[in-house]
Amino acid sequence: MESTVVEPGALLVTLDMVGIFVFAISGGLVAVRKGLDIFGVLVLAWTTGLGGGFLRDVLIGAVPPAALADWRYLMVPVAAGLVTFYFHPALGRMERLVNVFDAAGLGLFCVTGALKALDFGLGPVPAALMGMLTGIGGGVARDLLAGRVPVVLRSEIYATPALVGAAVAVAGESSGLSTFAYAIPAVVLCTGWRLLALRKGWEAPRPAGSAST
Amino acid sequence: MESTVVEPGALLVTLDMVGIFVFAISGGLVAVRKGLDIFGVLVLAWTTGLGGGFLRDVLIGAVPPAALADWRYLMVPVAAGLVTFYFHPALGRMERLVNVFDAAGLGLFCVTGALKALDFGLGPVPAALMGMLTGIGGGVARDLLAGRVPVVLRSEIYATPALVGAAVAVAGESSGLSTFAYAIPAVVLCTGWRLLALRKGWEAPRPAGSAST
Amino acid sequence: MESTVVEPGALLVTLDMVGIFVFAISGGLVAVRKGLDIFGVLVLAWTTGLGGGFLRDVLIGAVPPAALADWRYLMVPVAAGLVTFYFHPALGRMERLVNVFDAAGLGLFCVTGALKALDFGLGPVPAALMGMLTGIGGGVARDLLAGRVPVVLRSEIYATPALVGAAVAVAGESSGLSTFAYAIPAVVLCTGWRLLALRKGWEAPRPAGSAST
Repeated sequence: MESTVVEPGALLVTLDMVGIFVFAISGGLVAVRKGLDIFGVLVLAWTTGLGGGFLRDVLIGAVPPAALADWRYLMVPVAAGLVTFYFHPALGRMERLVNVFDAAGLGLFCVTGALKALDFGLGPVPAALMGMLTGIGGGVARDLLAGRVPVVLRSEIYATPALVGAAVAVAGESSGLSTFAYAIPAVVLCTGWRLLALRKGWEAPRPAGSAST
Repeated sequence: MESTVVEPGALLVTLDMVGIFVFAISGGLVAVRKGLDIFGVLVLAWTTGLGGGFLRDVLIGAVPPAALADWRYLMVPVAAGLVTFYFHPALGRMERLVNVFDAAGLGLFCVTGALKALDFGLGPVPAALMGMLTGIGGGVARDLLAGRVPVVLRSEIYATPALVGAAVAVAGESSGLSTFAYAIPAVVLCTGWRLLALRKGWEAPRPAGSAST
Repeated sequence: MESTVVEPGALLVTLDMVGIFVFAISGGLVAVRKGLDIFGVLVLAWTTGLGGGFLRDVLIGAVPPAALADWRYLMVPVAAGLVTFYFHPALGRMERLVNVFDAAGLGLFCVTGALKALDFGLGPVPAALMGMLTGIGGGVARDLLAGRVPVVLRSEIYATPALVGAAVAVAGESSGLSTFAYAIPAVVLCTGWRLLALRKGWEAPRPAGSAST
C-alpha cells in the first residue's frame, strides 16, 4: 500500500505534488542565481519543496513524514531541480519567475496543509495556522539556506494570503461541498492575491517615525 | 475545555503568557529596527514569542503544541506586535530595550519550559536542558530570520543564566514547596543575572592566541 | 537503565559518540574562527554535535531524543568544545581541520542515522534519506548559526557521499553480516570520498549559461 501525504482525495495528492514541484523550482532558481552547482540546486529544490510539509508533519505529530516513505514525493523535487538546472536559461527573467512559482506553491500548500491538519484532528483555527505555516515553511528554509532575508519578512503581502487561503479551505471542509468546490478556489484566491500584490507593488504600512538606534 | 501550555498552576500559565509577550516585543523591535512593515513585525513577534515553546513541544513530543490550539497563546504575540508597531517611538532606545525584554523572556521561558518538561516525564537533567532550549529558541529564531548573529553566540552571558534558572526550577519542583516559592526566584535569578551581565559588560573568556586561518 | 541513541550494538554507540565529538570540534573551530567566547564555542559545539541527531529523532518520532537523557551524549560535545577552546592553536590550519572533522562526522552520522531509522521501522529508502539528513543536519545548523553559507550548498561533493554511505549501511543491515562488517566500510567510504573530493578539488557541474537577473 502506498502512503499519501493528503488523504483521502486524489485531488489533494495532486495539488500537493504540484505544490512541491513549483516550490522546488523556486528553490532551484534561487540556487542557480547564487551560482551553486547541481548538488546545491538539488538540495535547495528538495528543501524548498518538502520543508513546509515536514514542518507541518512534525508539528501535528505525523511522523515520520509520509513524504519520506513515498517515492513520488521524493522524486518530484529532484525532477524539478533537474529541470531547473538544465533549462533555466529558457526560463528567462529569474526573480519574477521565482516569485510566480513561489506564489503558486504558497497557494497550494496553505490549502493542502490546512486540510491535512484537519484530517489529524486539529480544530479549525489551529488547522488554518498549520496551513499558513506549511505555505511559509519551504520558502523560509530556502531563503535561510541561501542567505536571503526570508520573503515572508520583506515588504510584501505574503503571510496574509496564506492564512486566508487556509481559512477558506477549512471553512469549505465543514461546508459539506466536494473538495473540488472549495480547494481550487482557495488555491486561486491565495495565489492570485499574492501575484496581484507583487504586480501592483502593494505595500503594507511601515512603522511611523524613525527607529531610534 | 481550554488547553493550557503549562499545567497545572495558573501562575505558570501567567508566567508563560508574560514570557511570550515580552519575547514577542523583542522580536517586534528587531523588525522595526530592520525597517520591516507591519506583517514583518507580526511575523517576527509571533516567531520570537512562540518559537522556543514550539521547539520544546516538538522535542518532548507534546504535539500539536498546545499554543496552536489556544486563542490566548495565539493572540498574545499579535497584541505585542501591534503594540510595538504603533508605540515603538515611545519605547525610545531600541537596542537596550530589546535586550531588557529579551532577558525577561529568557528568565520566564527557562522556568516554564523546565517545568513543562518535568510534567511530561523527563528527568531532572533533560528537563533543565529543555528549559534552557525553550529560553534560547525564540531569540535564535528571531535573529536567524532577521539576519543577525544569534544573541546566544555573541560575547555575553546568555545560555548559562538560562540553564541555571531552569535548574533552580527543577530543584524547586522536587522540594515540595509551592510553585510560587521557587518559580518567581528562578525567573528573577536568570533575568537579573542576564541584565547585570549586560550592564556591567561582563565578558566570558575568549580563546587564547589567534585563530590561524 | 541507561538509554542509548543507537541500539543494539555497542559499536554503533561508539561510532555515534565519535561522530558527535568530531562534529562538535568542527563547530568549536568555526566558533574560534569567528572570535566567539567560551560560551559561543560551547553552544556551537553542542549544536553541531547533537543537531543532526535531534533532527533525525524528531522526524522519526523518537522524542524526547535519547541524547537529551543520556549524560554521555550531553558531555561529549562539551568536552569537545573545551578541547577546542584550549588547544585550538595547536590544531593549526583551521579551515582544513574543520573540513576533516566535518567529513568524519558526516561519515559516522550518515551510518548511525540510517541504522537508527531502520531500528524505528522505516523502510530502506526513507532510512537512507534519514541517514543523509542526520549527517547533513549538524553542519547546516552550525553554518546557519555562524552566518556562513551551509557547506552542503557550496560547490563540493557533500550530500552524495552521505546518501551513498547511508545506503551502504542500509544494504548491509539486510545482508545478515555483523554490524562491524558493513558499518565501518560505510563510514570509511563516505568520509574518504568527501576528503578525496576536498583534496582533489572535485567540482560538480554548474548550470550552463548565465543566470539572467
